[in-house]
Amino acid sequence: MSKERGRTVEMSEIMVPQMANLLGNVHGGWLLGFLDRTAYVCGARYCGLNLVTLSVDQVFFKEPIYVGELLTCYATVNYVGKTSMEIGIRVTTENLKTGQIRHTNTCYITMVAIGDDQKPIPIPALTLRNEDEKRRFQEALIRRQMRLALYKDKDPS
Amino acid sequence: MSKERGRTVEMSEIMVPQMANLLGNVHGGWLLGFLDRTAYVCGARYCGLNLVTLSVDQVFFKEPIYVGELLTCYATVNYVGKTSMEIGIRVTTENLKTGQIRHTNTCYITMVAIGDDQKPIPIPALTLRNEDEKRRFQEALIRRQMRLALYKDKDPS
Amino acid sequence: MSKERGRTVEMSEIMVPQMANLLGNVHGGWLLGFLDRTAYVCGARYCGLNLVTLSVDQVFFKEPIYVGELLTCYATVNYVGKTSMEIGIRVTTENLKTGQIRHTNTCYITMVAIGDDQKPIPIPALTLRNEDEKRRFQEALIRRQMRLALYKDKDPS
Amino acid sequence: MSKERGRTVEMSEIMVPQMANLLGNVHGGWLLGFLDRTAYVCGARYCGLNLVTLSVDQVFFKEPIYVGELLTCYATVNYVGKTSMEIGIRVTTENLKTGQIRHTNTCYITMVAIGDDQKPIPIPALTLRNEDEKRRFQEALIRRQMRLALYKDKDPS
Amino acid sequence: MSKERGRTVEMSEIMVPQMANLLGNVHGGWLLGFLDRTAYVCGARYCGLNLVTLSVDQVFFKEPIYVGELLTCYATVNYVGKTSMEIGIRVTTENLKTGQIRHTNTCYITMVAIGDDQKPIPIPALTLRNEDEKRRFQEALIRRQMRLALYKDKDPS
Amino acid sequence: MSKERGRTVEMSEIMVPQMANLLGNVHGGWLLGFLDRTAYVCGARYCGLNLVTLSVDQVFFKEPIYVGELLTCYATVNYVGKTSMEIGIRVTTENLKTGQIRHTNTCYITMVAIGDDQKPIPIPALTLRNEDEKRRFQEALIRRQMRLALYKDKDPS
Repeated sequence: MSKERGRTVEMSEIMVPQMANLLGNVHGGWLLGFLDRTAYVCGARYCGLNLVTLSVDQVFFKEPIYVGELLTCYATVNYVGKTSMEIGIRVTTENLKTGQIRHTNTCYITMVAIGDDQKPIPIPALTLRNEDEKRRFQEALIRRQMRLALYKDKDPS
Repeated sequence: MSKERGRTVEMSEIMVPQMANLLGNVHGGWLLGFLDRTAYVCGARYCGLNLVTLSVDQVFFKEPIYVGELLTCYATVNYVGKTSMEIGIRVTTENLKTGQIRHTNTCYITMVAIGDDQKPIPIPALTLRNEDEKRRFQEALIRRQMRLALYKDKDPS
Repeated sequence: MSKERGRTVEMSEIMVPQMANLLGNVHGGWLLGFLDRTAYVCGARYCGLNLVTLSVDQVFFKEPIYVGELLTCYATVNYVGKTSMEIGIRVTTENLKTGQIRHTNTCYITMVAIGDDQKPIPIPALTLRNEDEKRRFQEALIRRQMRLALYKDKDPS
Repeated sequence: MSKERGRTVEMSEIMVPQMANLLGNVHGGWLLGFLDRTAYVCGARYCGLNLVTLSVDQVFFKEPIYVGELLTCYATVNYVGKTSMEIGIRVTTENLKTGQIRHTNTCYITMVAIGDDQKPIPIPALTLRNEDEKRRFQEALIRRQMRLALYKDKDPS
Repeated sequence: MSKERGRTVEMSEIMVPQMANLLGNVHGGWLLGFLDRTAYVCGARYCGLNLVTLSVDQVFFKEPIYVGELLTCYATVNYVGKTSMEIGIRVTTENLKTGQIRHTNTCYITMVAIGDDQKPIPIPALTLRNEDEKRRFQEALIRRQMRLALYKDKDPS
Repeated sequence: MSKERGRTVEMSEIMVPQMANLLGNVHGGWLLGFLDRTAYVCGARYCGLNLVTLSVDQVFFKEPIYVGELLTCYATVNYVGKTSMEIGIRVTTENLKTGQIRHTNTCYITMVAIGDDQKPIPIPALTLRNEDEKRRFQEALIRRQMRLALYKDKDPS
C-alpha cells in the first residue's frame, strides 16, 4: 500500500520593517504574495505536479498585521476537481512579546496542475477521511459554483 | 473654483526573470502586490489621504504573463462611500517584440481612508460626470452588497 | 498600410522607504536604475529589438525626491541613427497629499539594438511628423556630436 | 498558574531561483541568514525579549539544497543561561515532486537578551520536563564550554 | 598634528544572475546605482559629512559586464569646491576563471555636503600632495565648467 | 614563467537601514551571507574553479555593526588541501563620520572545488612564500583537525 502524501502545510515568517506601509503595518500586497506561495507549496506537496494560480477568492484584511509579529499560514487542500484544486489558508499572527495570537485572514486559492506542454493535467482525487474533510469539500464545491458564476460576469468594460 | 483632483492612474512595469515562477511565467503573487500598489496610488491621488487595503475581490488569472512583456495597470475610482472607496483595475500586457496587447485580468480593490488616530475618516464624495461614470458607480454598488454578504459568511473553521 | 508602433512610454512608481538614503530622500542611484529601465521600454516599444544601454548623458539631481511621492518618467524616442537611438526622459513627482507636481530631472539615454550574435543591427528610421519632432531630432543630433567628442577624451588615467 | 510559552518553532520556505548559486544550488549564505532568523523567532517566542545573535556554531553544508525544494527549519531552545540561550536548528528539505525528505544540516545559535539600554538582561530559566530536554541541556552545556575556550583563542592576526 | 583622512575607496561585488538583463549581461541601471554608492562612500570617508548626489557625468558603457565576474570600483576625490566635491571612479572587471582584467567604464560624480537643516555646508579643502593629484584637480575644474554650462542649457521642453 | 594568481580579496559595503534588525544594528544573518560571498570570491580568484561552501566555522558577533558604517572584509587563502581550501576573513567597520575603525569579527570558511559533474576536483597547491603564510597554514591545519573531529559528532537527534 502506497504512503499517502501530505495535504496541509504551515508556513511562518517574521514581519520586518521592509514589509510595512507608511502607517507602519504590513502591506496587503506583501501578504497576498505570501498567501500565493503558501498555496503553491500546499498543493505541490499533495500532488507533486507543476501548479499555477487560477484564482484568488476575495481577501478581507480584517485586522492590521504589525512589524515584529510572527505571521503563520495554515493551508489545507479542501477540494480536488479534475485538473484544479482549492486550497484554504488560515492566517494568524503571534505577538512575540506577549504571546497573543490573532486570526487575521482566511482565503481560498484555486490552482491548476500543468504538464510539460503547459496544458492542464489530472490531479489525483482527494479521499475524504472524516466529517471535517467532507464538510470542507462541500463548502468548497459551493464556492466553486459561485466562482464559475462570477467569472462569466467578470469581463470588464 | 477649485481644481478637481485626478481619479485614474496608469502604472507600467517591465516583466523581468526575477518575477517568474518555475514555468517561466510571472507569479500570481507578484501581480497581486502590484495591483495593491496601483490601487493605493489611484485612491491617494483622488483623496490625498492615508489609505489601507480593506479587501481584494476575486482575481482570475485568465492568461499567463510572460517575462519580457510590459505590464500596464489602468486604475479608476469607481465608487466612494463614507470612508471607503472601490478602485477598478484593468491589466494588459504588451509584447514589446510584436506590439501585441492582451487583456489579462481585471480586479476590484476596496480601500479605507485612515486618520492620524488610525481610525477611518470621510472621503470626499465622487461627482458622477457622465453615463460611463454612473454605470461604474452602479456596478460597484452591487459588488459592495455582494462583499458585505460574503463577509458575514467568511469566518472560517 | 502597416500600423505605426509607439514611440513614447510613461512609467510611474510610488516612492517607498526602501528607496531612501540616510536623509530620507530617494537615492540618486535608485533613480538612475529606473531611468535606464524606462529608456529600455520606450526604445523596445518603438523597434521591437533587443537593446543595450550605450550611454547615459549627464544627470543633474535638481531637487530631492521624497518618500510617499509618485515618480513619473515620460520617455520619447528623439533620434534614431543606424543602430542606435536617443531616448529623452522627463521626470516629475506628484505629492499625493497636495496634488502638487514638480519637474525634478531630465536626461538622455542612448541605446543600441543587438542581434542574436550580440552585434549591433539596424533600427527602422524615425519619421518626423511635426515641428516638435523635428526640433527634438535636431537637438539630439547636437548632443550626439558632443558625446562623440567627449568619448574620445574619456579614457581615464 | 500561568500558561507556559512555546520553546520550539518550525519555519519553511520554498527554494526559488533567486537563492541559487552559479551551480543551481541554494547559496550557503542564504541558508545562514534563514537559520539566524529562525533562531531569533524561536528564542523570542520563548522569552518575549529583544534578542541579538552572539554566535553561530560551525555549520557543515553536508548536502546541496536544490531550487524547487521546501526547506524546513525546526528550532528548539536547548539551554538557557543567565542572559543567553542556545537554540538548536535541524534543517530538512522536501522534494515536492517525490515527497522525499533529506536532513541537510544541524546548527546551534546563541542569542543574548537585550534591554532598552542595549545591555544584557536576564532570561527566564528553562524548566526541563523530560529526559530528552535534560539530554539537550547537558549537550548544550558542553558546547558552551567549547565556545568559551574557542573564543579566547579566536582573536586573529 | 591631526591624522589625515582617506580620499580613496575600493569597492567590489560579484556579478550574479539577478543583475542581468535579457541578454545575460549586467544591467546598466544596476551599475549606475553601484557607482553612486561608491561615490558616497569615497566622499563621506574624506569629509565625514552627510552627502547627496548633485550630478552624474555622462557614463559610457564601453563593454559588457558578465555574470560571474568580479566588478571593482576605484574611487578618488579629485576636486573639492566650497560645498561640493567631484569623485572619479574607475571600473574594472575580473574574470575569476581566467584572471583577465578589463577596464569597462570611468565616470565622475559630484556630491554636495548637507547640514542638519538640509542646506549645503563647507567641505574641508583638498591638499594637493603630488603632480598626479594636481593634474586630477585641474581636469576636474575643466569638467566643472562644462557642467555649469550644460546645466544652464538643460531645462527641457 | 606563469603569473601567479591573487590569494586575497577585500570587499566593502555600506550598511543601510534595510540590513538592520529591530534594535537598529546590522543582522547577523546579513553578515553571514556577506562572509560567504567574500570567501567565494577569494577562493575563485585563487584557483579559477567553481566552488561551493563546505563549512563555516563558529562566528562570534563580538560587537554590533551600525547602519551608516562601512563594512570591510579582508579574505586570505590560508590553506589548500586536495580538493578543499580554508579562507580566513577579518571583518572591520569604519565609522564614516569619525574615521574610527573597529575589528568586529573573524571567521574561517572552507570551500570545495567542483567539476562539471558536480564532483570535487583538485585545487592547485598553495606555495608558502614567507613566515606569515607558513604560520597561517599551520593554524589552518589545526582547525581542520578540529572540524573533522566535530563533524563526526555532529549528527543530531
